[in-house]
Amino acid sequence: MHPHIQFKPAVNELHLLDQRLLPLTEDWFVCRNMADIITALKEMVIRGAPAIGVTAAYGCCIAAGTIDPNSPSWQAELDAQLTELAQARPTAVNLTWAVTLMRQTWQDHPEMDLKALRTAWITQAVAMHRHDEDVNREMGRHGAALLRDGDTVMTHCNAGALATGAYGTALGVIRAAVESGKNIAVLANETRPFLQGARLTAYELAQDHIPVTVCCDNAVGLLMTKGKVQAVVVGADRVAANGDAANKIGTYTVAVLAKRHGVPFYVAVPFSTIDFATPSGAEIPIEERTPREVTHIQDRRISPESVPVLNFAFDVTPAELITALITEKGVIKPSDLRQYAST
Amino acid sequence: MHPHIQFKPAVNELHLLDQRLLPLTEDWFVCRNMADIITALKEMVIRGAPAIGVTAAYGCCIAAGTIDPNSPSWQAELDAQLTELAQARPTAVNLTWAVTLMRQTWQDHPEMDLKALRTAWITQAVAMHRHDEDVNREMGRHGAALLRDGDTVMTHCNAGALATGAYGTALGVIRAAVESGKNIAVLANETRPFLQGARLTAYELAQDHIPVTVCCDNAVGLLMTKGKVQAVVVGADRVAANGDAANKIGTYTVAVLAKRHGVPFYVAVPFSTIDFATPSGAEIPIEERTPREVTHIQDRRISPESVPVLNFAFDVTPAELITALITEKGVIKPSDLRQYAST
Repeated sequence: MHPHIQFKPAVNELHLLDQRLLPLTEDWFVCRNMADIITALKEMVIRGAPAIGVTAAYGCCIAAGTIDPNSPSWQAELDAQLTELAQARPTAVNLTWAVTLMRQTWQDHPEMDLKALRTAWITQAVAMHRHDEDVNREMGRHGAALLRDGDTVMTHCNAGALATGAYGTALGVIRAAVESGKNIAVLANETRPFLQGARLTAYELAQDHIPVTVCCDNAVGLLMTKGKVQAVVVGADRVAANGDAANKIGTYTVAVLAKRHGVPFYVAVPFSTIDFATPSGAEIPIEERTPREVTHIQDRRISPESVPVLNFAFDVTPAELITALITEKGVIKPSDLRQYAST
Repeated sequence: MHPHIQFKPAVNELHLLDQRLLPLTEDWFVCRNMADIITALKEMVIRGAPAIGVTAAYGCCIAAGTIDPNSPSWQAELDAQLTELAQARPTAVNLTWAVTLMRQTWQDHPEMDLKALRTAWITQAVAMHRHDEDVNREMGRHGAALLRDGDTVMTHCNAGALATGAYGTALGVIRAAVESGKNIAVLANETRPFLQGARLTAYELAQDHIPVTVCCDNAVGLLMTKGKVQAVVVGADRVAANGDAANKIGTYTVAVLAKRHGVPFYVAVPFSTIDFATPSGAEIPIEERTPREVTHIQDRRISPESVPVLNFAFDVTPAELITALITEKGVIKPSDLRQYAST
């Protein structure tokens, strides 16, 4: 996959491959200020916890580039924009994680003027972006060992290159297994309502010539009954200190079915997605999104106008259903996670 | 709900409310010969096990009205058309059940000419249609007692008036509970790929002013975790002798989640849907339908062209996950079903 996040410091633009239009159209959404960045996050031009983190880091640079460096209130303006950025989406911890890291640099160097701060942030954001890919490749290396030659691996939503800086978390594990010479086939759950599986996972695996088949979310139970699934690998938007994992709505269902059918269920996450400040899944805020994602598909209404809908974007898979977390530090049982709390 | 199956014997037409176009358009599909009937069944102009049975019965009458009564081969022509009809869809047992009953009448009266046979069939088909509604109301009466005032009931797919001759099986239970004065709210799973929940269940409950909310199939786990569901009631396309129930893809998943969360899971079926000749769910054929139902929504492609999809239309819920069957003969535990084998 080509880079889907492209930062252009000379013109102060962030170019994002518009994931709302994939796979049918490859179009770029150009962010020139913080309002554009927040729109891109809220409307899911870009999504996926690590990708949200990288976008937020670049967003700080973009914001710094739009504010008048001679304004006496540049600090207040920038601070307000960072506060708004951190609230763009509630569930993925990588958003606040990235903004907190950028703020730390600012706090550590109160002497910097806006121009110097922007330069420092650009270095930091580019490093975060590169680090994200390195971390994913490391996770892939650890996770690939869990998959056997010939396995069919189910994944839910898109935890791929498009959800990260590059390479992917769950799909990074699959890519690494394929790169190590194993034959791996992928079952991509279509992942209603936003169809990240049918649209994004199918798109990026097909681009990489990794065999992928799309199925409706409703088919997960039947496919496991038929013995068609040897492992499940998903990403997460936030993992709590006890190992509970918030991920795209429907992930919990897949985990319950995997447990019933004896299929190992892996969550591939970088440590930036693990939130030791959140004790358990019960404390993770679950975003509710616009009903239109459910009532309309590609701008066409499917349900009656008078009927309300629920559109929770995430659910929580309890640690007891997770065979292991695949991280850049190795494969970790959820019950062992607390040992890493201070690292 | 108005009658959605309207037989016009004088002009030899069967008018079916086209369920592919609901809820946005109320249009009628007119069947004038067996080819039209088979198209209506295969392309899901009409669907739902009991509705398929009623349509098949009327289909025999339509066929009888199109064949030249003076043809020396009218018996062979009619026989061939009935054989083709019985194979239109494989999973719902009501189709073969209805065709077998119509054939029985023919076999019992070999002396009848085509005109007399058609007259006898019309009487029989109208009676089957009326009987289906009576049976549903009886099932409703038995099932309503299982629901408490204030309950929120989840249903999957559409086992409503539109899936039957009238009134509905699962939705008949809900209608009967509401008619008995209980406040019942319904959660309709949207039911990908054909969206029978978002389109049909939402449509017919809204028409009857029964509170209904649509949710993605992926949300079932979260909604049960939140304690939002007090009971699940679904229909079935075929129940095997041991109580295993084939129903719309995803039903098994809902049943597994209901078991985990202690939510009672009821299957509302007339005895015409119980197939004592099929020992268990393992012997029920599962229809695979066109990939286009998954790859396209309202004629717009959602997944990449190069990526294959799986589209199984049904799954099997094992008897152990079914709290009870709601039938016209009462509420029956799956393990007690064998007692009714000879009735």
